Amino acid sequence: MLALPDCDTLLLNLEGGVLHVTLNRPDSRNAMSLTMVSELRAVLESLRNDISVRAIVLRGAGGHFCAGGDIKDIAGARAKGGDAYRSLNRAFGSLLEEAQATPQVLIAVLEGAVLGGGFGLACVSDIAISHQDAKFGLPETTLGILPAQIAPFVVKRIGLTQTRRLALTAARFNGSEAERLGLVHFSETSSEAIEARLQQVLSQVRSCAPQANAQTKALLLAAESEALGPLLDRAAEQFAAAVTGAEGIEGTMAFVQKRAPKWAQ
Amino acid sequence: MLALPDCDTLLLNLEGGVLHVTLNRPDSRNAMSLTMVSELRAVLESLRNDISVRAIVLRGAGGHFCAGGDIKDIAGARAKGGDAYRSLNRAFGSLLEEAQATPQVLIAVLEGAVLGGGFGLACVSDIAISHQDAKFGLPETTLGILPAQIAPFVVKRIGLTQTRRLALTAARFNGSEAERLGLVHFSETSSEAIEARLQQVLSQVRSCAPQANAQTKALLLAAESEALGPLLDRAAEQFAAAVTGAEGIEGTMAFVQKRAPKWAQ
Amino acid sequence: MLALPDCDTLLLNLEGGVLHVTLNRPDSRNAMSLTMVSELRAVLESLRNDISVRAIVLRGAGGHFCAGGDIKDIAGARAKGGDAYRSLNRAFGSLLEEAQATPQVLIAVLEGAVLGGGFGLACVSDIAISHQDAKFGLPETTLGILPAQIAPFVVKRIGLTQTRRLALTAARFNGSEAERLGLVHFSETSSEAIEARLQQVLSQVRSCAPQANAQTKALLLAAESEALGPLLDRAAEQFAAAVTGAEGIEGTMAFVQKRAPKWAQ
Repeated sequence: MLALPDCDTLLLNLEGGVLHVTLNRPDSRNAMSLTMVSELRAVLESLRNDISVRAIVLRGAGGHFCAGGDIKDIAGARAKGGDAYRSLNRAFGSLLEEAQATPQVLIAVLEGAVLGGGFGLACVSDIAISHQDAKFGLPETTLGILPAQIAPFVVKRIGLTQTRRLALTAARFNGSEAERLGLVHFSETSSEAIEARLQQVLSQVRSCAPQANAQTKALLLAAESEALGPLLDRAAEQFAAAVTGAEGIEGTMAFVQKRAPKWAQ
Repeated sequence: MLALPDCDTLLLNLEGGVLHVTLNRPDSRNAMSLTMVSELRAVLESLRNDISVRAIVLRGAGGHFCAGGDIKDIAGARAKGGDAYRSLNRAFGSLLEEAQATPQVLIAVLEGAVLGGGFGLACVSDIAISHQDAKFGLPETTLGILPAQIAPFVVKRIGLTQTRRLALTAARFNGSEAERLGLVHFSETSSEAIEARLQQVLSQVRSCAPQANAQTKALLLAAESEALGPLLDRAAEQFAAAVTGAEGIEGTMAFVQKRAPKWAQ
Repeated sequence: MLALPDCDTLLLNLEGGVLHVTLNRPDSRNAMSLTMVSELRAVLESLRNDISVRAIVLRGAGGHFCAGGDIKDIAGARAKGGDAYRSLNRAFGSLLEEAQATPQVLIAVLEGAVLGGGFGLACVSDIAISHQDAKFGLPETTLGILPAQIAPFVVKRIGLTQTRRLALTAARFNGSEAERLGLVHFSETSSEAIEARLQQVLSQVRSCAPQANAQTKALLLAAESEALGPLLDRAAEQFAAAVTGAEGIEGTMAFVQKRAPKWAQ
């Protein structure tokens, strides 16, 4: 039985193998507070070995995804000195690293403000569904600060060429442009269309075997940094284990019997 | 004189410096059998030092490119145990590595099913021409197995952001979408348009010097993994050798004399 | 006070914190001569520690950006032997490395010929604005030589998949296609539209803090080659220093006081 942490800044709802996580600080457009960072990390930690949860759907309450860092936390850290800034910043980077690597399929639903840290979170999702009117941007350098933890993930998401323009001009853009840049996978015209897309995607995810998806995701992430030959050697071992394992046997049998495999039912 | 291997699963036709390779198991939509993997590797090996062949055009017989791995081979390996799975899987990865590195320009003509292993082969082509109605997808995890050898090449082809959605949802998509994702270079509306595009591309390839193209291709592949400074040092050596070599002398002279160079005739 | 080098092949104009650099050899469509390479490197060197210059706008005189290498230099090097080829080629690669890393925002305005070395220069800009009728291409291998120093930067710019087709076919394409390929950020229909876009971009750059932008640019470039964890650690140090530094204090104060920060005035 999954034990989810108690959270002040997040709404959690586990339903049909999908954990819905809602950033819930609507008064500050879900600004990423230190508490929210800790709570998101705790949620991910609680799921780390539990692939009975197939997907995590991350969105924001009140019409915005996340407007960036929380200014009160920055003021609080000012009182404590430079080390406090460093650790609050790095903690957000750790959240991004952990969200990137979570074995579940991470789906981001993006509406309203998707700025700074919110932009960073969008960049570690496996599937991003945006409202066409969402507002994306990296405003950090207009404030004299850096998109320090975010920038590397933006480069991984959309490449250096697009990232350098966005980061060095702080240009704002909408969901349609985000789709064109490859930042999101779908740009939708209404909340209804977003919901329909989400259901389609969740249905597709359920058709895929849990263990196979988790291992494939790890393999994709490794492909960006590991040398190809050893990676392919390791992947072949995993392939052999998958074919002879429970999922491979069930998947092949279901295919032959022209029925849906157990995980898709 | 080029000695091509005898092949059961491939049709080979060398014409005008272009080797046409047709996957020829139309009854199984050209499923990638162990024999086909071996024969493709043998063909590439026979061409490894022969740049008189300027391009390889790879396509499938019977209206499909390749529907993926062969289920009979998987069943056969089951009888032999886990090591057999590992080595059949890794052999396909070796084919992808060798096709990626082949000194000829590798052109894939994609129609019908381009699934699993067929998708992987498409990802190592230098130029991919698709019918707009071709059917692309990575169905592996719906069968409880992994796109183990394929996934790293898809990441190299279209980046992590698009690959993670495709691999974790097994979504199907057509040639137009494949062009939008950067997986193929051209999406055409008919077989005639595909043929016309192929002739245009082959004509462009013939206008380029054989040795220069082969060295440039190796340089592009190296750019993804080697450190920039040493790579540029080495490239400068190659530049000097090319300018003073036969191709550089012929190319410059042809340019000055406003005639086509020998290799383009 | 900025001391710019005297230049024969470049027009330099420093105005409002923006250095306008015009390649000025219109008779040869601004072919990249050895002198021009040296002068561009000297200009970048003079700016290396001067972020009072916010942006460099690079363009060509006479309706062309740059048609590639200079044939006379190649002929001159022929007289001196292979080493001369190697060093003239490598010097151009060094220019690309230095332009890529310049702390100012590098903006390329692309019209007419953007070929060979000109194509390479376009690939290291932070923001590229093209006329829709500009002519892009990598013609090297049609001349029997290699895009030796350029190719690795094209791979970094638009990825291996698109680069391999362009380099191995020498295909020409226009500004609209360059935008679709992600080579340029904007494709405009007239000189007036280019100028308007340039002013918009410069205004956005001025809204960003100089030091923060320079550090962010370095971070983006590092993200392509450095391991993620140590990079994020370092970025957190830089974040803490930025927040407590002059720019961070001014930026936050301006935000609270709802006024433009000093650097944007």
